[in-house]
Amino acid sequence: MPRRTSDRRPKRPGRRAGSAGESRDAILRAARVLFSRLGFRGTTMRAVAKRAGVDMALVHYFFGSKPNLFAASVELPIDPERVTALLAARPSAPGVALARYYLEHLFVERSEAISATLRAGLGDPECVPALRALIERTLVTAAAGTLGAKDARLRAELAGALMVGLFVNRCIVGVEPLASASVEQLVSLLAPALDALLGAGAQVQQRGDRS
Amino acid sequence: MPRRTSDRRPKRPGRRAGSAGESRDAILRAARVLFSRLGFRGTTMRAVAKRAGVDMALVHYFFGSKPNLFAASVELPIDPERVTALLAARPSAPGVALARYYLEHLFVERSEAISATLRAGLGDPECVPALRALIERTLVTAAAGTLGAKDARLRAELAGALMVGLFVNRCIVGVEPLASASVEQLVSLLAPALDALLGAGAQVQQRGDRS
Repeated sequence: MPRRTSDRRPKRPGRRAGSAGESRDAILRAARVLFSRLGFRGTTMRAVAKRAGVDMALVHYFFGSKPNLFAASVELPIDPERVTALLAARPSAPGVALARYYLEHLFVERSEAISATLRAGLGDPECVPALRALIERTLVTAAAGTLGAKDARLRAELAGALMVGLFVNRCIVGVEPLASASVEQLVSLLAPALDALLGAGAQVQQRGDRS
Repeated sequence: MPRRTSDRRPKRPGRRAGSAGESRDAILRAARVLFSRLGFRGTTMRAVAKRAGVDMALVHYFFGSKPNLFAASVELPIDPERVTALLAARPSAPGVALARYYLEHLFVERSEAISATLRAGLGDPECVPALRALIERTLVTAAAGTLGAKDARLRAELAGALMVGLFVNRCIVGVEPLASASVEQLVSLLAPALDALLGAGAQVQQRGDRS
């Protein structure tokens, strides 16, 4: 994964002497850049303070520990409200819109953030609890709230699994023909599977379910 | 991910002085352990030679370069023949057997190998081409060969994506309720989606497909 260097602006320590809120935001921005670039283990509280242009003590004051700082700084690449809106717009068959949103927007615009989240989860067991809590609290809760189906949380996580694996196979490993397949082709193949996972169109689903 | 230490046996250099085939096997075994433990970048040809108890020149003689050594040493955690047999056993609805095989066997018995493969793919762009070629050549070719559906290779890769993401969400990140869900419950939710992705029971599928 190439690393962007656009975030390497010269520090402006004078600007950060403002309110507590500004310092806190500066620390979070610095933490996001460093966790994404160096991983959980490679990032120190000291380096975050330095990059944010604040005193180390302030980082400890606001966040206490590195796992807490990670939990506060990590941003899921997926907007729960957007996912909720897509699910609610057409509850009987959300798969088409959902697949299109992932393939056309998330996988293109948030590719680096998705890679960073995956690398954090796979590479650093210490940051997994924070990542897990965040996913459960935001994305799964939001999606499950709009699904009428039984096992709504579990179903939301299974649909999420399909999109995680799709990102790995298409955008990271790049297996063919998946990597070169058009969005249209993929949407048409993915939508029925997403609908089945999410419990949409239950009667269609049950037919393939049991022997 | 905790690292197993069971492979840290004392070296027995005397035994490796045998045939060329034995040396080659020893190098591959050493490479597998080191790539899995240290990643692609952290593994040197020198360290592989040392662990295998052979001369550096022999590693270069057999494999030429580190990417070549990686490509030769990487083992997919999934047996293509087993997957082919599962697909062929019940072509109209292979999802149940496939989901059960992944959840009961692969995710349990090959957990460490799957993690290592994922870490390699995500962490080391240099080893991605070897990984990609291996997946395309073995797993996708085998699975696609037994699927009658149009787009068989693409469909095989999409079903694989679901299982990759399932492993990440259930076994690595451990989101709940997915991590604690029973195999039975997951099989019943996954099977229709796998059948849809693989093009099994095509008429069931098309109904959910378009608006």
